[in-house]
Amino acid sequence: MTDAYIVGVDMIKFGRFPDQTVPQIGSKAALLALDDAGLKIQDMQALYCGNLGQASGMVGQRILQEIGQTGVPVVNVSNACATGATAFREAWTAVKAGLYDLVLAVGVEQMGKGLLGGGGGGAGISKEGLLGSGTMPAVFAEAGMEHSRNYGTTFEQFAKVSVKNHHHSTMNPKAMYQIETPLETVMNAEMISYPNTKLMCSVNVDGSAAAIIASESKARELGLMDRAVKVRASVMTSDPWQERDLVMPDVNSCTRKAAAAAYEMAGLGPDDVDLVELHDCFATAEILHYENLGLCGDGEAGRLIDDGEVALGGRVPVNVSGGLLSKGHPLGATGIANLYEVSTHLRGEAGKRQVEGARIGMTHVIGLGSACGIHILEKAS
Amino acid sequence: MTDAYIVGVDMIKFGRFPDQTVPQIGSKAALLALDDAGLKIQDMQALYCGNLGQASGMVGQRILQEIGQTGVPVVNVSNACATGATAFREAWTAVKAGLYDLVLAVGVEQMGKGLLGGGGGGAGISKEGLLGSGTMPAVFAEAGMEHSRNYGTTFEQFAKVSVKNHHHSTMNPKAMYQIETPLETVMNAEMISYPNTKLMCSVNVDGSAAAIIASESKARELGLMDRAVKVRASVMTSDPWQERDLVMPDVNSCTRKAAAAAYEMAGLGPDDVDLVELHDCFATAEILHYENLGLCGDGEAGRLIDDGEVALGGRVPVNVSGGLLSKGHPLGATGIANLYEVSTHLRGEAGKRQVEGARIGMTHVIGLGSACGIHILEKAS
Repeated sequence: MTDAYIVGVDMIKFGRFPDQTVPQIGSKAALLALDDAGLKIQDMQALYCGNLGQASGMVGQRILQEIGQTGVPVVNVSNACATGATAFREAWTAVKAGLYDLVLAVGVEQMGKGLLGGGGGGAGISKEGLLGSGTMPAVFAEAGMEHSRNYGTTFEQFAKVSVKNHHHSTMNPKAMYQIETPLETVMNAEMISYPNTKLMCSVNVDGSAAAIIASESKARELGLMDRAVKVRASVMTSDPWQERDLVMPDVNSCTRKAAAAAYEMAGLGPDDVDLVELHDCFATAEILHYENLGLCGDGEAGRLIDDGEVALGGRVPVNVSGGLLSKGHPLGATGIANLYEVSTHLRGEAGKRQVEGARIGMTHVIGLGSACGIHILEKAS
Repeated sequence: MTDAYIVGVDMIKFGRFPDQTVPQIGSKAALLALDDAGLKIQDMQALYCGNLGQASGMVGQRILQEIGQTGVPVVNVSNACATGATAFREAWTAVKAGLYDLVLAVGVEQMGKGLLGGGGGGAGISKEGLLGSGTMPAVFAEAGMEHSRNYGTTFEQFAKVSVKNHHHSTMNPKAMYQIETPLETVMNAEMISYPNTKLMCSVNVDGSAAAIIASESKARELGLMDRAVKVRASVMTSDPWQERDLVMPDVNSCTRKAAAAAYEMAGLGPDDVDLVELHDCFATAEILHYENLGLCGDGEAGRLIDDGEVALGGRVPVNVSGGLLSKGHPLGATGIANLYEVSTHLRGEAGKRQVEGARIGMTHVIGLGSACGIHILEKAS
């Protein structure tokens, strides 16, 4: 089985682009990723596209209409908030299968303003999964409160996640926002669903991200190994009903199952990971995922954020990009945007926010309904 | 690279099920395919689901909610009328990549009544692709008329496709209809868009189909090789802009490109094929695809239908299932239903409609917008 490498990866600056079409937004990231690799669309042997809002609308093919219709296979995927990661993973799988040597994965989303709803067509959440609450903020608020009840996690600790991620994003020119949000500002912002204030909810933005995956032989042939990033693990899970906990039926158990499988596939453990981009759709979620991903023991997440271990400069910086809370969360793009961020650090090209000496990085997304995607990346050389 | 085999495959009888949900309809085919292989949902290591109507709705995961949530990876795909074939191909790719040894692919659709519209979210067709006409019937009528202008193909010849496929479906208990439609009946039916009458348009039905794909070692380990069907070729294409013709920009060039690649991958030619399930979304389309798939030379399609070469008992029977014209066309299910039909013949289990001695079969779907999927299957032993 050939190894597969990311040889090009990029994202647009997230924002709001109501005057552009979804394929137009997606094509911009595709062109950026091609430029990053020094390749042309004609070099791509297949396209895997992730989008939720127009999931049945042949978005991948329409992206090729924007930048070059070459007749290659196009696959459109959708998997709630794991949509982008799914597109990437399908592309990676095709290279691993030996079908292609160079493939393009694009994730794109055009969001409306406002908070994420739950239970609609997009998320496809069952009534059972929602525990009687109808919105994402309620689900993740309840999960945070359960953590508080079990471990004494405080409102302030949840709020510190937002302070950290907003601070990180001031160093990321591609984030939606570059604004410091002091603890008091976060805690005094409009309360959406306790303990998450408005600044502790992910930002609905439009965006796109793209990656080019190459087989090892092709990456070497093209002289792209210097900046190549190896995919050490690519794992997905769905709701493991019999193993799940009561409060967050999908999110926790899916993530724990995926993390265990990813570490096993990579032959690595949490201590080997130098940085993590995880699914901070709400501040409470980030706290849960410190433990779900094994970055600390159960009940230690509050201490982790208090001690600065997950901030830039700490033991294992989390969401140095600014995360979904400040970089923004265009659903279909998020999974690939995370891969861009981690790859950029492994390449040593992250500028002010560079995690020094980063060699191993992890990305994590979780879509309710449910799909969790985890990737572990390593600097190739 | 391991070979991959279909070790279980089935479909529900197509019909109209307004009182069932899409996941319920899909789960029925999944259970039938599992029964066919003598396996349980707990044996499946991943699920690939194809659906258009609820493409963003986590249909694959909701199918698992119906029949057993095991936590395995679920990928939801969408590719217009090639959706089912795409789900199957992604599943096959994952087995070829060595990620899994046993995977389930499901295609499902719940359609409304009436004729297929064009240009909506579902098909995502560009204005350019529609040549100024707004509906599928107009597109495929124009394509038929172009064939008439070039080669003298007659209304009667187009109508004979419908007569043949309806006749075939009288022997297929899973087809929507089992009714003979004499030539006069077809030609005198309501004219939809000349030369296609209502009986020359595919039937909008609800339906589902599912397949289980195994690696060679797993198929042998489970003792499933006796009825296993080998995937000799799995190919997809999208619109190859620079190679396309003017009248059917996607359909013809996509199919020709895919067919050439499929024959090459299989190391076979059209003469090796014993039966074909092709995309007869309209009677005119079937005529075009005889030539696009190389079953005859350009301009010879009319003679092929006149001479009975593509009827059961002929040289290369086409759409022995009844085809989209009479079996029905639940978009997301069609690609896998075709694989079921061909597999059933290769296994010698097709009853009255059995193509005697069939060893090699081909399936073909084409979605405007565009995606063509072609598979070549062979009896394993």
